[in-house]
Amino acid sequence: MRVNGQHYRSIWYDAAKDSVCIIDQTLLPHHFEIKTLQTLEQVGEAIVNMRVRGAPLIGVTAAFGLYLAVRDQPQQRPQAINYLLGTRPTAVNLAWALKLMDAQLQLLPAADQARAALEFARQLAEQDVLDCASIGEHGSQLLEQLWENKTDKNAPLQILTHCNAGWLATVDWGTALAVIYKAQAKGIPLHVWVDETRPRNQGAALTTWELQQQGVPCTLIADNTGGHLMQRGMVDLCLVGSDRTTVTGDVCNKIGTYLKALAAHDNGIPFYVALPVSSIDFALQDGLAQIPIELRDGTEITHITGIDSDGTRRTVGIAPAGTQAANYAFDVTPARLVTALITEKGVCKADQDSILRLK
Amino acid sequence: MRVNGQHYRSIWYDAAKDSVCIIDQTLLPHHFEIKTLQTLEQVGEAIVNMRVRGAPLIGVTAAFGLYLAVRDQPQQRPQAINYLLGTRPTAVNLAWALKLMDAQLQLLPAADQARAALEFARQLAEQDVLDCASIGEHGSQLLEQLWENKTDKNAPLQILTHCNAGWLATVDWGTALAVIYKAQAKGIPLHVWVDETRPRNQGAALTTWELQQQGVPCTLIADNTGGHLMQRGMVDLCLVGSDRTTVTGDVCNKIGTYLKALAAHDNGIPFYVALPVSSIDFALQDGLAQIPIELRDGTEITHITGIDSDGTRRTVGIAPAGTQAANYAFDVTPARLVTALITEKGVCKADQDSILRLK
Repeated sequence: MRVNGQHYRSIWYDAAKDSVCIIDQTLLPHHFEIKTLQTLEQVGEAIVNMRVRGAPLIGVTAAFGLYLAVRDQPQQRPQAINYLLGTRPTAVNLAWALKLMDAQLQLLPAADQARAALEFARQLAEQDVLDCASIGEHGSQLLEQLWENKTDKNAPLQILTHCNAGWLATVDWGTALAVIYKAQAKGIPLHVWVDETRPRNQGAALTTWELQQQGVPCTLIADNTGGHLMQRGMVDLCLVGSDRTTVTGDVCNKIGTYLKALAAHDNGIPFYVALPVSSIDFALQDGLAQIPIELRDGTEITHITGIDSDGTRRTVGIAPAGTQAANYAFDVTPARLVTALITEKGVCKADQDSILRLK
Repeated sequence: MRVNGQHYRSIWYDAAKDSVCIIDQTLLPHHFEIKTLQTLEQVGEAIVNMRVRGAPLIGVTAAFGLYLAVRDQPQQRPQAINYLLGTRPTAVNLAWALKLMDAQLQLLPAADQARAALEFARQLAEQDVLDCASIGEHGSQLLEQLWENKTDKNAPLQILTHCNAGWLATVDWGTALAVIYKAQAKGIPLHVWVDETRPRNQGAALTTWELQQQGVPCTLIADNTGGHLMQRGMVDLCLVGSDRTTVTGDVCNKIGTYLKALAAHDNGIPFYVALPVSSIDFALQDGLAQIPIELRDGTEITHITGIDSDGTRRTVGIAPAGTQAANYAFDVTPARLVTALITEKGVCKADQDSILRLK
């Protein structure tokens, strides 16, 4: 997708330097900076500190990380995998990518592993782009229908989204936002309500930025606002991503997603979740009981980073010194509140029969 | 209540200076500063810029403002009332206090109005303190019951609150937090989950500060988090204030309250609203259709004020420059989601028959 009119991906391999390039997302939207990762540890740091984030992109980044590890110390592959698995516990793509990759690498002699690992990571990235484009295509057909059925054609199709499920969360296109980009390309009039998504403000910092770069009209709102807008008929659909989805259709996504799903349900508004099949955990029946929820540092809530009027990056505290904060990063939206899943293989209901057909 | 161990109210009349003193709440929790208001315009500015906020305190502040206006320019009383009515449109106490006061003043000769206005404002403040203490008393009996019925006595009674309905929102004690302070005094083990309450962060800045000053254990959370905690059995009750309540029991409170009420309902957790009877609008049947919702400046969302590591107060931007933001300040929680109202006249159901008995 576009940054200042130029095409970028969120991650790519730089053959000349034999290293991995990412957009440092902690600096967006104020600074667009490319960071070069040359070691496993640099990859781990980038994932933990959310320089890259979003389930699909984490998976691809981890794969490149394993390549760098195997290139430098082939005998340390198991340790490298364990290290990467510990960086973010909730998203399933990370474990899925590393497991697939490990299965292939262990069949090879040590001397061939680095080349194979790089090939795997690059293919994973390419496949992610294709899958996301396909998610966008399937979802945009849904939006076309919703637009056709909308009685008041004076207002655009009003979409509420939470967090960032855009191209910055994947390699390109995105999941939820891919649907929006493809619908925009089809000429459907759209407007997006962007939840700021506390505490990390991915909506305020990343989703608004992405949408503005693509020319999609959007308005930033506090996370508290979506229910009010839905009560007032100002939202036609909710559209979010997912970090892990159970085979029964429970959706684990950024904290606060569940509250929006409740409001959508209470107001008869469809609630769609866009995701690659790789983020479905076919082993899980019960999202609430079985998905580990990452508990991050409380300072992400008590302190906020932005830029001051001089353009200087600063962090300010908003709570009394020493305030305890509990920072759960994800919640689980039960399948009963999900209208449909949008995947690269098509749109389906959030139930076991439908999801098993995606396998 | 206490500030560094010393007793304060949120507003008081300083006879020596013939002026009104407030705690400047925009500077909390980092700076505790008392501001002296000497004119109607200074009072208006303090209300608009939320140096004082909270429905009951806004009512009392407006009454003092009308005193200052009548003292300085008795013939401008109608204009002063209109000016004050325009400062915050959603809370009903402001209109209620001014209407009552005007009815009394218009019976008096101009020369007697200033003295009567001051007397009225001071009595209103005293009555607010008594009412809030009484709300706390009634509510604490409810909490006593909930504590007795709680099976797991190893954990304290877990209360989730939104925004600041504490003594800083009233003259003393508070509404929702009065219940907590009175229950604490009775020795009930308590822990409070404090919603940070974007965009103005009244939870992060004021509620945590108040609770800490009184020694009530509390943990700050992002507004997105409450649903997750309720799903996990980590909340025993929700307890919030109200800016305006209809005679049918619809509750208009800080934006985001509705989302927490939905989550409480979905998880079978009681949802209580503490309020003085003066904040009930007996003329309104339908909160969604009839209560005007204040739309504040979008920069309250795109920019956040706090202190940096040097203790310097700074404002930082978190969104791309030029981002549009929609800043609705309140939402309406339908009566069907409210377990009970806690008032100075007792606890009652959120329905018309019960509410009319409070009149």
